[in-house]
Amino acid sequence: MSRFFSPKYRELEAYTPGEQPRERKFIKLNTNESPFPPAPAVRERVAEAAGGLNLYSDPECTALRAALAERLGLSPENLILSNGSDEALNFAFMAFCDERTPAVFPDITYGFYPVFARINRVPFRTVPLRKDWTVEISDYSACGGTVFLANPNAPTGIALEPAQIERILAENPDHPVIVDEAYVDFGGESALGLIGKYENLLVVQTFSKSRSLAGLRLGFAAGNPELIRDLKTMQYSTNPYNVDALAQAAGIACLAEDGYNLEHAAQISETREWTRRELLARGFAATDSRANFLFASHPAFPGSSLRDRLREKGILIRWFDQDRIRDWSRISIGTREDMETLVRTVDRLLEERA
Amino acid sequence: MSRFFSPKYRELEAYTPGEQPRERKFIKLNTNESPFPPAPAVRERVAEAAGGLNLYSDPECTALRAALAERLGLSPENLILSNGSDEALNFAFMAFCDERTPAVFPDITYGFYPVFARINRVPFRTVPLRKDWTVEISDYSACGGTVFLANPNAPTGIALEPAQIERILAENPDHPVIVDEAYVDFGGESALGLIGKYENLLVVQTFSKSRSLAGLRLGFAAGNPELIRDLKTMQYSTNPYNVDALAQAAGIACLAEDGYNLEHAAQISETREWTRRELLARGFAATDSRANFLFASHPAFPGSSLRDRLREKGILIRWFDQDRIRDWSRISIGTREDMETLVRTVDRLLEERA
Repeated sequence: MSRFFSPKYRELEAYTPGEQPRERKFIKLNTNESPFPPAPAVRERVAEAAGGLNLYSDPECTALRAALAERLGLSPENLILSNGSDEALNFAFMAFCDERTPAVFPDITYGFYPVFARINRVPFRTVPLRKDWTVEISDYSACGGTVFLANPNAPTGIALEPAQIERILAENPDHPVIVDEAYVDFGGESALGLIGKYENLLVVQTFSKSRSLAGLRLGFAAGNPELIRDLKTMQYSTNPYNVDALAQAAGIACLAEDGYNLEHAAQISETREWTRRELLARGFAATDSRANFLFASHPAFPGSSLRDRLREKGILIRWFDQDRIRDWSRISIGTREDMETLVRTVDRLLEERA
Repeated sequence: MSRFFSPKYRELEAYTPGEQPRERKFIKLNTNESPFPPAPAVRERVAEAAGGLNLYSDPECTALRAALAERLGLSPENLILSNGSDEALNFAFMAFCDERTPAVFPDITYGFYPVFARINRVPFRTVPLRKDWTVEISDYSACGGTVFLANPNAPTGIALEPAQIERILAENPDHPVIVDEAYVDFGGESALGLIGKYENLLVVQTFSKSRSLAGLRLGFAAGNPELIRDLKTMQYSTNPYNVDALAQAAGIACLAEDGYNLEHAAQISETREWTRRELLARGFAATDSRANFLFASHPAFPGSSLRDRLREKGILIRWFDQDRIRDWSRISIGTREDMETLVRTVDRLLEERA
């Protein structure tokens, strides 16, 4: 920290992204990336768009917004594109939280929420998940703050049903409820259909996971046009050209071939179920995940030991140094072959231990 | 504005980017874009990188930082890449300004500075330029805040010399001085060489202008490693993967062919001087711009009339509805052909008026 750094941020603890090793070939099951390359047309459309990069990108993302609106059955005014869904989430913390309106979210959830609260210097309150990692819906009745719920939740993978989301929306009419659906395409149910009914609903999604574009940074928020305009004000006050021209071109290409993405998402969900059964058969506990990862624990591997042992064998998974979940690991779902290797490697670790 | 929007931002006026018309073919001299396409290798490298977009980008921009460090004669620890230079500037407002440390900048400068101050809820003080639009250096002696200086300045195009920057650095040892060099490659002199000498210097540059990548969003800040670490903390607290994988690939390709960019920058500077002479010959006042734009005024075209009349003839320029500069226009430098068309069109406008 330099001596010029503002004291207001002295307590800040930045988010720690998952490891991105460059030096050797790992099986990367640590950052919830898709094991499949993006839709074939992305490459071509991106190369085409590269020739025009001397001009600024369209800050309104007009063409991409129209394509996305059509795909989702919404109007373009219901949508704002962002530089990854993290940016849309940050805009929501900026616009809808302040000294009098805290952010409210589960104690176990996406680790960036408390970071967003701190960087925006707004208070937040965490609500403990039940012992089985599910959300107690009644905890959010008239909670007096702006609610942030990842659905499916991370790192547990557990999904809420639309009726549960709807209850939270109805019981907090004076506060926005942000539903972060980064992982919804792997077996969750989206709240997008509730946008017309609840003016306090904001749904955030990403092209990173089910659309294989993590490296491109493309996300969006969907909600009633007034909420979207508030987020636009944040965009135009920080980085009007936040979504670059190549991301816009790739996003359009990707939506035109969304069958490709849906097929891979289904394949990943199937592989997740297979992997889960194999792990349960080997003495693991594992939540009923509807995401592209599993959340699992084994009595023979307390703390970070599963992560550490797998790393030695060339497989990266994610472990969080956090109360309540220190004996659990998050395992992203790769290809079927990746997961067969994982299961075989777990067998070796269990044998070595015996 | 929704009824959920935080009152803390009720007074916010977002930045207004220059018009990006999609409907017809204009000569675009309104957003300081390069008229030349990016370096030829960009297209190829971007297409290559597209196949791997399912993986997150390197949040440290390791390869691009190394290439840029070599190009600039700095160390990688002196550099942070950003999603356009706007993001680096916003990080500087976040990290180095607060209730006790205002931002200090000229009254006539890049219009985003007051927006960054307001969105970060930090006070700012503007220092009037002299009547000839130059900076009075002594106004910044021990000014008690974090200084933001665009050099060359926008929209005036007037450049400060390194000795003048050095005096401001020396006279504000306890505050960072941010030198925004978006336009430096068109005839300004960079302060990058002062980084080793002044720990309070932060230089911000962009790939948007002289490197023809406005649509890609790639900028950077350079300074002593402690200042850079403070900005990294901002990055990791808002959007760790801010610079996407295609931008990193394109940036590397672009630096490898920097001769192409330098040649075009020289061509633009030459065209600027030609255009300036032609405008002066027609009764315009014009500053001694060292940027890829001119700042000009003509008694026959008060207020926004030059912008309005040129627009009717298919040429876009930029006018700012702001005290002191309401009779002036900012005219980006396009190709020589673009500028010949501009001059001919000005002749027509003057004839029509006569």
